[in-house]
Amino acid sequence: MTRAPILFYFDFSSPYGYLASLEIDTLAGRHGRSAAWRPILLGVVMRTTGMRPLTEVPLKGDYMRRDAPRSARRMGAPFVWPAAFPISTVAPSRAYYWLLDADEAKAKALGRALFRAYFGEGRDISQAEVTADVAATLGLGRGEVLAALQEQRIKDRLRAETEAAVAAGVFGSPYVIVDGEPFWGHDRLGDVERWLETGGW
Amino acid sequence: MTRAPILFYFDFSSPYGYLASLEIDTLAGRHGRSAAWRPILLGVVMRTTGMRPLTEVPLKGDYMRRDAPRSARRMGAPFVWPAAFPISTVAPSRAYYWLLDADEAKAKALGRALFRAYFGEGRDISQAEVTADVAATLGLGRGEVLAALQEQRIKDRLRAETEAAVAAGVFGSPYVIVDGEPFWGHDRLGDVERWLETGGW
Repeated sequence: MTRAPILFYFDFSSPYGYLASLEIDTLAGRHGRSAAWRPILLGVVMRTTGMRPLTEVPLKGDYMRRDAPRSARRMGAPFVWPAAFPISTVAPSRAYYWLLDADEAKAKALGRALFRAYFGEGRDISQAEVTADVAATLGLGRGEVLAALQEQRIKDRLRAETEAAVAAGVFGSPYVIVDGEPFWGHDRLGDVERWLETGGW
Repeated sequence: MTRAPILFYFDFSSPYGYLASLEIDTLAGRHGRSAAWRPILLGVVMRTTGMRPLTEVPLKGDYMRRDAPRSARRMGAPFVWPAAFPISTVAPSRAYYWLLDADEAKAKALGRALFRAYFGEGRDISQAEVTADVAATLGLGRGEVLAALQEQRIKDRLRAETEAAVAAGVFGSPYVIVDGEPFWGHDRLGDVERWLETGGW
């Protein structure tokens, strides 16, 4: 029997979502699982929670500016602060869902490329043209991508995925659900791993 | 040369502060350090950050109610949700600072006993009488403790420590500073340990 994938919720504008994205598939694979990537719009989620972007919270915003690159250094991961931060992630998220049903592996490859473009190179992936440029490096047609970003079906899909995430309790990025058990934050991947190993405690 | 203590900021009403308090001294000791406990009033800190108690944040509050006991179980630590939560921690914090200058070891023993009374047994340590009862188990005079809680010098000390914490960037509990390097959250004690081991990365 194939066990259910673990659910990996994130916003493409979240530095900790980026860092988790570098580890989540390997982590899941160590336990015979896959990770289902679910990009969401944290700005929409925040309408439910009343939370604000970290950058707007005094002291905490300063801490995050120091901690995110420090965490990346510890991992040996590329990291730059994009000039545009935080950003709307409608375009990259829609591009991901456009690919997902047809080819999940390619959708995840696009997700990785988009994160790398944004947090590895500082490119503003909120711009549809930039998202299309990134997609083109994977052999996708730029025009096809730009058209997909305006499809009503894709717009509805992202909205529905974000609403489903809120209904599942997701309030931040990254947020991982393993067999119904929720874990919030990049620094909880150790707990995710232990939960997969032990089935809970 | 004795190396400087690591600074351990917390609020007695913080479940993650409690969990960190069970580990911080052993962790510091492994690296030839001590931990200087610094209780603060998070409610006062929140006037600067505009943050709200976790319990008041939709979704995130629910998560914390599930995660804190789960984290305690993983550690094998006693944990109950106190009927009164969160609470004002003026009384236990003042009691700590009253003892600190005269006898730091005893002050920390009181801190541990107060945390255990609150998160291990659910007793409402916001009540001066309860804080005094806990202090009495360490051989301190109840009347002496109750009087100390009303001393202007002690009131001023707690206010000054909380203000100093905000000035140092502290916005949550637990918050650890190692040689000027800040780490927020119980789940970052692994990073604290690695920083102590390596001197930074």
